Amino acid sequence: LTQTTSVQQLVRGVLHGEKRAIAKTISIIENNEPEAQKIVSLIYPKTGRAHIVGITGPPGAGKSTLIEKLVKELRNRGKTVGIVAVDPTSPFSGGAFLGDRVRMQDLSMDAGVYIRSMATRNHPGGLAKATKDAARVLDASGKDVVVVETVGAGQSEVEVIKVAQTILVVLAPGMGDDIQAIKAGQMEIGDIFVVNKGDRENADKAVSDIQAMLELAPEKKGWKPTVIKTSALTGEGIADLLERIDEHAKHLKKGAHDERRKERVENELAEALTQKITESMMKELKQSREWKKLTEKILSREIDPYSAADRLLEKQLKNTRKH
Amino acid sequence: LTQTTSVQQLVRGVLHGEKRAIAKTISIIENNEPEAQKIVSLIYPKTGRAHIVGITGPPGAGKSTLIEKLVKELRNRGKTVGIVAVDPTSPFSGGAFLGDRVRMQDLSMDAGVYIRSMATRNHPGGLAKATKDAARVLDASGKDVVVVETVGAGQSEVEVIKVAQTILVVLAPGMGDDIQAIKAGQMEIGDIFVVNKGDRENADKAVSDIQAMLELAPEKKGWKPTVIKTSALTGEGIADLLERIDEHAKHLKKGAHDERRKERVENELAEALTQKITESMMKELKQSREWKKLTEKILSREIDPYSAADRLLEKQLKNTRKH
Repeated sequence: LTQTTSVQQLVRGVLHGEKRAIAKTISIIENNEPEAQKIVSLIYPKTGRAHIVGITGPPGAGKSTLIEKLVKELRNRGKTVGIVAVDPTSPFSGGAFLGDRVRMQDLSMDAGVYIRSMATRNHPGGLAKATKDAARVLDASGKDVVVVETVGAGQSEVEVIKVAQTILVVLAPGMGDDIQAIKAGQMEIGDIFVVNKGDRENADKAVSDIQAMLELAPEKKGWKPTVIKTSALTGEGIADLLERIDEHAKHLKKGAHDERRKERVENELAEALTQKITESMMKELKQSREWKKLTEKILSREIDPYSAADRLLEKQLKNTRKH
Repeated sequence: LTQTTSVQQLVRGVLHGEKRAIAKTISIIENNEPEAQKIVSLIYPKTGRAHIVGITGPPGAGKSTLIEKLVKELRNRGKTVGIVAVDPTSPFSGGAFLGDRVRMQDLSMDAGVYIRSMATRNHPGGLAKATKDAARVLDASGKDVVVVETVGAGQSEVEVIKVAQTILVVLAPGMGDDIQAIKAGQMEIGDIFVVNKGDRENADKAVSDIQAMLELAPEKKGWKPTVIKTSALTGEGIADLLERIDEHAKHLKKGAHDERRKERVENELAEALTQKITESMMKELKQSREWKKLTEKILSREIDPYSAADRLLEKQLKNTRKH
């Protein structure tokens, strides 16, 4: 940062919703630059106004087209929207087909919409943390709704989507594999399930399959997850979906939100601590003679990594006591 | 563990390649039970014989069918094989279509093949760690080749696949999205790129697309990643692929392996340390009055999680100094 754009100026820009300030701020957060923590501490008190909607699902489910329609409908209702795309296959992040990307430009020309893609790797502080803080920046910038888009596959994606208050799991009919994948890992994170491409012939089958699975799932603190059929192509179900999202937002306001928030805040504090503890101790340990010696021993299979870690910690403790 | 199956007995069973002992041992590792570390420390000196092959790629690329053919070919050559499936859409983990699962049973009836699926969540010690240690168990059990299968999407999957010495990235022609995804994140991890479903019409186009991308990629310590076209359906290219894997194994033995191993060993030691440091400090911190107070303050947006973590650590340091 140059002197002319101090952290304070940048934060002021964000709070006024200025696109350049938002872009710069998120880049600082994404690269975990030294100013990142200061910035988050300054905007944090101004967050909590936006409704954060997570949208996840396998590639090919039509998440991006669905988001496009949702955002247009939100804009018609006068709401401003921020989008954070963590999905590498999303046109919002430059992935997917050229046609999609062109259509997306429509959205990005709108002053009431801010679109940001996050690289899925090379986050010194972790992708989930960067995404969470990027969503906070958009929240503090005054956006009414912040959409976080991820590909719903691995553990890290589930971490990322947890920044959201309302989570949509999007599927398309006839993706047998993916319903299995959902079954295996994502069933419990969805507040609303969307069967997109509802114009396809086996859409109703997919809806009833998911409904059957949901019957077996426990209630989520008074919220019964439901299925909605949409067609991003014809616009069918989009208004319904928005209504359902609003219902969930209202439900959260009735107290369910508090519990969920407390849990997440505790997790986030624990993660921040872990990172800080690790950073400070690791630097020291990695420079020790013991580190080098133990690395050699692991390489020659004299000792395994876990026992080596125990030994390093023992030494470290002894040293601390000596001082 | 009961008295009749002590850790020593279990390890002995693993080293003799007994299926029951292998299964039990991997479960202990997966659940991070108290005996897990002891077991790994006992088998670690016996590892390093197997060639570990990672196979990743998007759902629908035909990874499982390819693995089936590869394994059959390896078996024809008299090699024993272990498979660790981390891919939730894989028939090896019970996902995918019934037909696939039935065909997989063929493999699992063979005494020279051991198949194990890893749940993609609820790993107290982390999925990458559990997978790495499961591969080690199969290595120590005497398997000549250990295959680790993942869905190639997120950061955590990339972590998982790093256990492998040779990494195959599998694609199918006509999956436009996925080539983008690969471009975005996986290009640099692949040692061999496989265009599967090579009988499809645009297979050659996919091969040349990937080849063009690879031209721009830097050499990997003397290894130039290549593309091979296969058809799991007709068996085309399978023998070629095996040969290429062997070539890569030979290449690693010429010293390239050492550098790669050293880097990984250091990363693994760092991760083990992080986990141990965190576990021991977090327990204490979470029970402190300060933790509760700060959680409340984050909830009311008086303080952000990162500043709260700093404050907790300061207090902690002061306390340590007092003692």
